[in-house]
Amino acid sequence: MPRQVDPQQRRAELAEAVWTVIRRDGLQRASVRNVAREAGLSMGSLRHYFATQAELLCFAMQLVGDRARARVRAMQPAASPRATAERLLQELVPLDDERRAESEVWLAFTARGLVDPDQRAIHQGIHDQLRGACATAITLLADAGLTPADLDVDLEATRLHALLDGLAVHAVMRPEQVTPDRITAVIARHLDTLQAGPGSG
Amino acid sequence: MPRQVDPQQRRAELAEAVWTVIRRDGLQRASVRNVAREAGLSMGSLRHYFATQAELLCFAMQLVGDRARARVRAMQPAASPRATAERLLQELVPLDDERRAESEVWLAFTARGLVDPDQRAIHQGIHDQLRGACATAITLLADAGLTPADLDVDLEATRLHALLDGLAVHAVMRPEQVTPDRITAVIARHLDTLQAGPGSG
Repeated sequence: MPRQVDPQQRRAELAEAVWTVIRRDGLQRASVRNVAREAGLSMGSLRHYFATQAELLCFAMQLVGDRARARVRAMQPAASPRATAERLLQELVPLDDERRAESEVWLAFTARGLVDPDQRAIHQGIHDQLRGACATAITLLADAGLTPADLDVDLEATRLHALLDGLAVHAVMRPEQVTPDRITAVIARHLDTLQAGPGSG
Repeated sequence: MPRQVDPQQRRAELAEAVWTVIRRDGLQRASVRNVAREAGLSMGSLRHYFATQAELLCFAMQLVGDRARARVRAMQPAASPRATAERLLQELVPLDDERRAESEVWLAFTARGLVDPDQRAIHQGIHDQLRGACATAITLLADAGLTPADLDVDLEATRLHALLDGLAVHAVMRPEQVTPDRITAVIARHLDTLQAGPGSG
C-alpha cells in the first residue's frame, strides 16, 4: 500500500485484512500483530488507525452491516413489489463470494458476541438492521395487497429473519447442500407461502 | 467429584465443564488447563479421559447432538400428527435453559468449524441429524394428508431447518426479542402455512 492514503480508506483496508485472517485462521488469530502482518503494516502504523484490538475488531464487524446497507441502498426498483422484496432479501444472504465472506465474518463475530459485550452490541445493531429489512420486504407485499389482510407482519418478520440467518449459517457450513440456487428457491417459496390465499385470508 | 466413577460418567462431566467454560468465557478459553480447573481435576487426570484438547472439544460438541437425539427418542406420541411434529421441532430449539445451553455451545462450535476440519465434520453430522428431524416432521404432516399433495418435502426440510437454526441464533443473541413464547408461535405459524390449502394444492 502507498504511504499516503485516505485514513478512511486505510481503515477499510485494515478491516478487510481482519476479514482475511478470520476467514483463513479464525477470529482467535485476529490479533493486532497478525492483522498488521496481513496488511503489510507495522503494529505502530496499525495503531495509528486503531488504538486497540477491540476497536479494530468492532470496526471490522460493523463493516458487515455497512456493506449490506450500501447494497440495499444501491438497489434499483424491480418490476413488481414481489420482485423488489425478493431482490432485497437476496442482498442479505450468501449468494456470491462477497456475501459469503460477510456471512463467515458475521458468524465468527456472533459466537464471540456470546462472551464479549462490545461485540454483542454491534451484533445486535446488525441484527436489528436485518430484521428491519425483513419487515420492509413483508410490508412491500402487504401494502400491494399480495398477502392475506390478517397477516401478522411482526411475527412474519421474526420468521423471515430467522430463515435468512439460518440459510446464511447453512450456506457457510454446508455449501455443497445449501447452494445459491437452493437459497434462492427457498426464499421464493417462502414468499409464495406468504402470498398464498389472499382471497381466503 | 469422588475418585471412583464410571469413565463414561466422568467423560460426560468433563464435557459439561467444557460447556460451562465456553458459555462463561468463550471457546477460545476452553483449554485443557481451564477445563481441568473447572472440573476440579488435575491436568494429568483429565488427560486420562481425553488425550488431547481436540478430543475433549470434539466430545463436548458431539454431546449437543446426543442430547437432542435422546430427547427426541424419549418423546411420547402426541394426540395428532400435527401435535407430534410440533413437539419434535420444539425439542430442537432453545425453549429452556438446557436447550439454551446446547444452542450457545453449538453456536460457539459452528464458528470454530469454519477453520477447524475436525469440528466441522462433527458439526456437519449434527446438521444432518437436525435436517433429518425436520424432514421427519414434514413427512408426518404429509403422510397424514395435512399438506398439499405437491409439497416439495426436500425443499421444505431445507427451509424448516434454516428457520430452526436461525431461531436458535436469535434466541441466544436477542433473548429479550426472541423469547420461548415467540419461538413457539413462529413454529406453529410455519406449520400452519405448510398445511394451508390442502384442498387447493
